[in-house]
Amino acid sequence: MKVFLITSNENKIREFKLFLEPQIEVEAYQFEYPEIRSDDPCEITEVAAKQLAEKLKKPVIVEDSGFFIRALDEFPGTCTKYVFQRIGNEGLIKTMKGIKDRSCFYKSAIGYCEPGQKPVSFLGIEEGKVALKPAGKNGWGQDPIFIPKGKSKTYGQMRKKGDINFFRRRALEKLKRFLDKTVPCLLPVDEKKSN
Amino acid sequence: MKVFLITSNENKIREFKLFLEPQIEVEAYQFEYPEIRSDDPCEITEVAAKQLAEKLKKPVIVEDSGFFIRALDEFPGTCTKYVFQRIGNEGLIKTMKGIKDRSCFYKSAIGYCEPGQKPVSFLGIEEGKVALKPAGKNGWGQDPIFIPKGKSKTYGQMRKKGDINFFRRRALEKLKRFLDKTVPCLLPVDEKKSN
Repeated sequence: MKVFLITSNENKIREFKLFLEPQIEVEAYQFEYPEIRSDDPCEITEVAAKQLAEKLKKPVIVEDSGFFIRALDEFPGTCTKYVFQRIGNEGLIKTMKGIKDRSCFYKSAIGYCEPGQKPVSFLGIEEGKVALKPAGKNGWGQDPIFIPKGKSKTYGQMRKKGDINFFRRRALEKLKRFLDKTVPCLLPVDEKKSN
Repeated sequence: MKVFLITSNENKIREFKLFLEPQIEVEAYQFEYPEIRSDDPCEITEVAAKQLAEKLKKPVIVEDSGFFIRALDEFPGTCTKYVFQRIGNEGLIKTMKGIKDRSCFYKSAIGYCEPGQKPVSFLGIEEGKVALKPAGKNGWGQDPIFIPKGKSKTYGQMRKKGDINFFRRRALEKLKRFLDKTVPCLLPVDEKKSN
């Protein structure tokens, strides 16, 4: 089968193709689409996927990922891209000054919709902590300030070319299994039931 | 005439009634409505007013205001409410650490739409600077950290009960003149032409 990924982010196109093909062919349309404001990435991607599927008359996938800092009531959350473009990772580090709890998580929501159908979404989460300062130049987004749980280095220091972050891989695996029932489930047992 | 203000913010209801009545009757509907993500507050309010006017079959006004810091590429901008709810004014002050240019502006966009018509919007802007720390308990939003141009105190220190911030008053005056042509224009000459 073939799905249409709508995004203006070239990294996303590369990662989605890498993970989903050859079982699921991915054709990318590079453009910005309207999004709703919401605290919930799943709602954002479902509404967008539905609108785009009806408009393009094709099965559509969109992704929305964010960086959620617990001590800051999940800031920057669903405004991550907007905030990152303006104050960058240095700005996020500044807002953490004087705060001891540096726990945070990355969240990826993938919305999928076929024309005339209800949209569905798939969520991937990864726990970690906010680094004291940016480190490493690999990856993108918050990778230089995100230290995955159980590790001592940032994704910016650890990621290799072609790596896909765990949280996005998790959401992608759920999508892949939904689209192609022959794909074996590699998720931990406790996560097999939910979306 | 009568218009329907949609907002979940009680301060807004009070200010709109105070400014527009008795010439224009304001009935408030207190609920959250879906908004698009955009860099442009006018676009956000026009899209929302159009959708709400068609849904409610009534002439609708909505308002979206934001706080724009120049040195931070206009952060928090159209994400002001989301950001403020999470990191507050203290968080905004933190992001300004080490930055000399503290110039900023408040922006209010009011969207208006009648059923079956195109939406219009009215913009009010006020220049100022970000205080070194929050001061004063009057007003709401960023009032405790906003020092209006030519003043040395924050709105939080200066506002009196019933005052309406200059930027919102400016947008409200444009709306009022649009709805009621008998209202005299009190704006400076150079602003009379544009919306």
